[in-house]
Amino acid sequence: MNRFRGVFPAIITPMTPEGSLNEEAYRQVMEFNIQAGVQGFWVAGGTGESILLDDAENRRIAEIVADQSQGRVVNIMHVGAPTTARAARLAEHAAKVGVEAICCVPPFFYSQSDRAIVEHYRVVAAAADLPFFLYNLPGSTGVEITPDLMANIQERVPQLTGLKHSAPYVPYVKTFAQMGLACLIGSCRLMLPALTIGATGCVDGPPNMAPEQWVAIWRAYQAGDMAAAQEAQDRASEVADALIVPSKFHATVKAVLSQRLGIDCGGPRPPGEKLTAGERAELADKVAALGLV
Amino acid sequence: MNRFRGVFPAIITPMTPEGSLNEEAYRQVMEFNIQAGVQGFWVAGGTGESILLDDAENRRIAEIVADQSQGRVVNIMHVGAPTTARAARLAEHAAKVGVEAICCVPPFFYSQSDRAIVEHYRVVAAAADLPFFLYNLPGSTGVEITPDLMANIQERVPQLTGLKHSAPYVPYVKTFAQMGLACLIGSCRLMLPALTIGATGCVDGPPNMAPEQWVAIWRAYQAGDMAAAQEAQDRASEVADALIVPSKFHATVKAVLSQRLGIDCGGPRPPGEKLTAGERAELADKVAALGLV
Amino acid sequence: MNRFRGVFPAIITPMTPEGSLNEEAYRQVMEFNIQAGVQGFWVAGGTGESILLDDAENRRIAEIVADQSQGRVVNIMHVGAPTTARAARLAEHAAKVGVEAICCVPPFFYSQSDRAIVEHYRVVAAAADLPFFLYNLPGSTGVEITPDLMANIQERVPQLTGLKHSAPYVPYVKTFAQMGLACLIGSCRLMLPALTIGATGCVDGPPNMAPEQWVAIWRAYQAGDMAAAQEAQDRASEVADALIVPSKFHATVKAVLSQRLGIDCGGPRPPGEKLTAGERAELADKVAALGLV
Amino acid sequence: MNRFRGVFPAIITPMTPEGSLNEEAYRQVMEFNIQAGVQGFWVAGGTGESILLDDAENRRIAEIVADQSQGRVVNIMHVGAPTTARAARLAEHAAKVGVEAICCVPPFFYSQSDRAIVEHYRVVAAAADLPFFLYNLPGSTGVEITPDLMANIQERVPQLTGLKHSAPYVPYVKTFAQMGLACLIGSCRLMLPALTIGATGCVDGPPNMAPEQWVAIWRAYQAGDMAAAQEAQDRASEVADALIVPSKFHATVKAVLSQRLGIDCGGPRPPGEKLTAGERAELADKVAALGLV
Repeated sequence: MNRFRGVFPAIITPMTPEGSLNEEAYRQVMEFNIQAGVQGFWVAGGTGESILLDDAENRRIAEIVADQSQGRVVNIMHVGAPTTARAARLAEHAAKVGVEAICCVPPFFYSQSDRAIVEHYRVVAAAADLPFFLYNLPGSTGVEITPDLMANIQERVPQLTGLKHSAPYVPYVKTFAQMGLACLIGSCRLMLPALTIGATGCVDGPPNMAPEQWVAIWRAYQAGDMAAAQEAQDRASEVADALIVPSKFHATVKAVLSQRLGIDCGGPRPPGEKLTAGERAELADKVAALGLV
Repeated sequence: MNRFRGVFPAIITPMTPEGSLNEEAYRQVMEFNIQAGVQGFWVAGGTGESILLDDAENRRIAEIVADQSQGRVVNIMHVGAPTTARAARLAEHAAKVGVEAICCVPPFFYSQSDRAIVEHYRVVAAAADLPFFLYNLPGSTGVEITPDLMANIQERVPQLTGLKHSAPYVPYVKTFAQMGLACLIGSCRLMLPALTIGATGCVDGPPNMAPEQWVAIWRAYQAGDMAAAQEAQDRASEVADALIVPSKFHATVKAVLSQRLGIDCGGPRPPGEKLTAGERAELADKVAALGLV
Repeated sequence: MNRFRGVFPAIITPMTPEGSLNEEAYRQVMEFNIQAGVQGFWVAGGTGESILLDDAENRRIAEIVADQSQGRVVNIMHVGAPTTARAARLAEHAAKVGVEAICCVPPFFYSQSDRAIVEHYRVVAAAADLPFFLYNLPGSTGVEITPDLMANIQERVPQLTGLKHSAPYVPYVKTFAQMGLACLIGSCRLMLPALTIGATGCVDGPPNMAPEQWVAIWRAYQAGDMAAAQEAQDRASEVADALIVPSKFHATVKAVLSQRLGIDCGGPRPPGEKLTAGERAELADKVAALGLV
Repeated sequence: MNRFRGVFPAIITPMTPEGSLNEEAYRQVMEFNIQAGVQGFWVAGGTGESILLDDAENRRIAEIVADQSQGRVVNIMHVGAPTTARAARLAEHAAKVGVEAICCVPPFFYSQSDRAIVEHYRVVAAAADLPFFLYNLPGSTGVEITPDLMANIQERVPQLTGLKHSAPYVPYVKTFAQMGLACLIGSCRLMLPALTIGATGCVDGPPNMAPEQWVAIWRAYQAGDMAAAQEAQDRASEVADALIVPSKFHATVKAVLSQRLGIDCGGPRPPGEKLTAGERAELADKVAALGLV
């Protein structure tokens, strides 16, 4: 569990102008984050347009991150899919190409029993036999992993190592930590608060575009400098609040990274919505005003 | 719109013991329903395990239903998918092989703006250029198509013909009917009630396993025999209430059809959950007790 | 249960210009509805500004309705209150002054266990020992009375006779009817639909301002004239849709009744919001355009 | 705003065996908390059975707290009520008898427009003309005070000083702090986390029964000793988790205080549910095991 501590940006999936996976840009975004000092990545997850990717893309991304990181950071590869079989095949592939861990959303769209959720996770986790993380993201999946359900999963899924906690009841961070899980808080605005009650780190999209901000929180907190940690959290939240265009999350993060790295990360895959020219210009000004370029 | 009136069972997708599409069983389930007098089908939708199917299966199903029905009934083919591009390709294919109409869930998993939802529907509907139905199914998709959003869609999507209304506010049936839409009520227990306020028919899963029950409602209502219509609705709801095993909807409908037709429709695709042997036996007894075999 | 069939307008509580109970106007509104042919009233309930009334007002209203109706109609008196003791005292008083039945919201604001809800209803119902109705109104109370909870209540509360069903799952109308309960549908736009699946009548606010519209539905339905019943429901829903000003429900119903009866029913009790002069003028025009004056 | 910093237990309302206000016990509970070092009280609020109290009780409680505290702590008196007029009268009285501030839930039961909510608060706050706090408690009231609505309130209610934030989106703590408000976190399990993003203190029920635990958090945090603060928060959350009996919150807090102080704080006012004898015994053992007696 020691490896799953710190800042784990949820990395975007850069696209070419034609809308396919842009491998070169992917590697550059990774490198930018690695140089900034992140501990790992949450790969092809919500921020990475997970369920909008086809399986070939998911597999290629697993290969890219393993190859690019060369063990310098910890990659947690998302393998969730509508069917158990597809998710299990992606999990098996991810393990084969050398990611450090996998993560998986619960079954979505169709409501399933707790038994079915546990079984889904059991099969997928066994297919990789790597440290396994689940998503607690009821806003998108309709499934809340409560401590009771988590205990069921823990009993049946030996690979269970942790979770991304994006459910509204924040005190469960403590509960999950007490269950021995690596609890990565899913809100970058709550990184420091969550660390104080047992979270081991943070997974979210905004740290991907400004990793240095969240790395600063982590370093100050590790050094026991609370005043600096609070200042860093304030600054990081300010960056996230200032930049994210409502309902255009993917487009925002891609545009900021394009600007900061001087590359083209493309737009969101439809139905995800592009920025208008006006929004793009306004965003560029804010990035500059925040001193990010 | 006259074609979109009556009973439109949401048809299951029968599977082989190995879990792949069972074409022969698919045709038998269709034929059973056609012989019972249904007006059409809602194909590869929620009951048909839509988002658990891969695109090749979806395309094959479109071919099967067009071929099997030979114009005797109206097929409304579901083409929803996580990306706009995939849904549009399925829509294009469905039109080419001869279905009568298409239907499509709104974008799901990621929350999208109204603008993005309209654009998604515009692209998908244009790809088929057939009568277009949308799903109003916030319980699964997180998106409620309110009358205001519907008006936006109507303005931008010339193919818009109707909807499956499975949102909780039932009085919108009237509102959508007044907008000139074919409103198919998405709850089989509300078929008759909805007809009295302007619905043109019913789409749901249970009618697939006992089509004669809902055809009886339709016929009595068309004949103006309200007493008979109410009796038929009571009986139909009783059948649905008696048989459906909570959280195992797909498994239930497949098992009942297997029993009634003397074929093997297979089980649900995981993570969908199978019936236990005990549940299966109990269900068989209920089917017999209801006089369905 | 035979007495609890038909149109039961949820009656407003007319106020004087100073904001206190206007008894004379109350009697006139009742008489207007009685002359229009309603079967009874839902008194001092949601439309009647229930929890905004003090206990003395609630008691006075019970006296007024008993006195004014003189047995011509069936009064179902609301006695709900934040504490069990207050509700029980109101129930006892209501019985003493001669109302025909009482009704009561479940505990609200604080979430209570099912056991506590049952006990609350047991005590309140026993205090009146009259036919007892409960409110299934989760939108306001946060409590849904599911069929399971209803069965618990039925077992422990011998006075339980029926309910106002304003919960979103409409098929429960049938379920509650099968449990032997008088199920009064809480949406006036669903009166006819609900009757076809076992509702015994309708309780809602809009029928209070245009009782003749809902009485027409009831009479046509009773006469077995389905075409006339549908036409009446269409017309009634049109009236409700046209007149109700969003978020100003109480103000709307009071203004329409003031206009139609040529009296002053006053405004809503704050925090309820008054109509603006513009809204009031626009509303008056609509009332005229609909031929209601 | 400097006065509104620290631990503000939401104080229970002790009752006599007959169920009326127990003044003597009220003073003892206050004194116990004051001796433990709390900075103030949230009086007759959610934990204090607010809307279950009658107005005379609310007024008497205001007198008691002002008299008992003698300026040693800051009393924030709850004056919320179903009608604006009742809340305003309570506010006026509270100011007259010398509480330091008032607080008020938004309108509940009936859904109101933002305009109506602002006006309600304007009238109530003006009646006391003291520092004014609102409740952001959508779980009980159905109203979420978003930052936009808060800005409206801030513009129209000059007395607005702060809030108890019990809405699920915790990052708004920062937002409200940036608006210049004293943001008291409404979850005792999140006191330390919330302090790190700008909360000025904590209001909740559990600190009332074990104030020393939350005072320890506050003191360590003020002293800049983060390790001690985290340890104190862990211990405080452990106490809350161990003791609170689900759905019997008021009964739990009263029983623990009765045990610790050797007095009788009575039970919850019905419909609130009493502890069973078994629950009471088990709770007493836990209190002892935690070293609280």
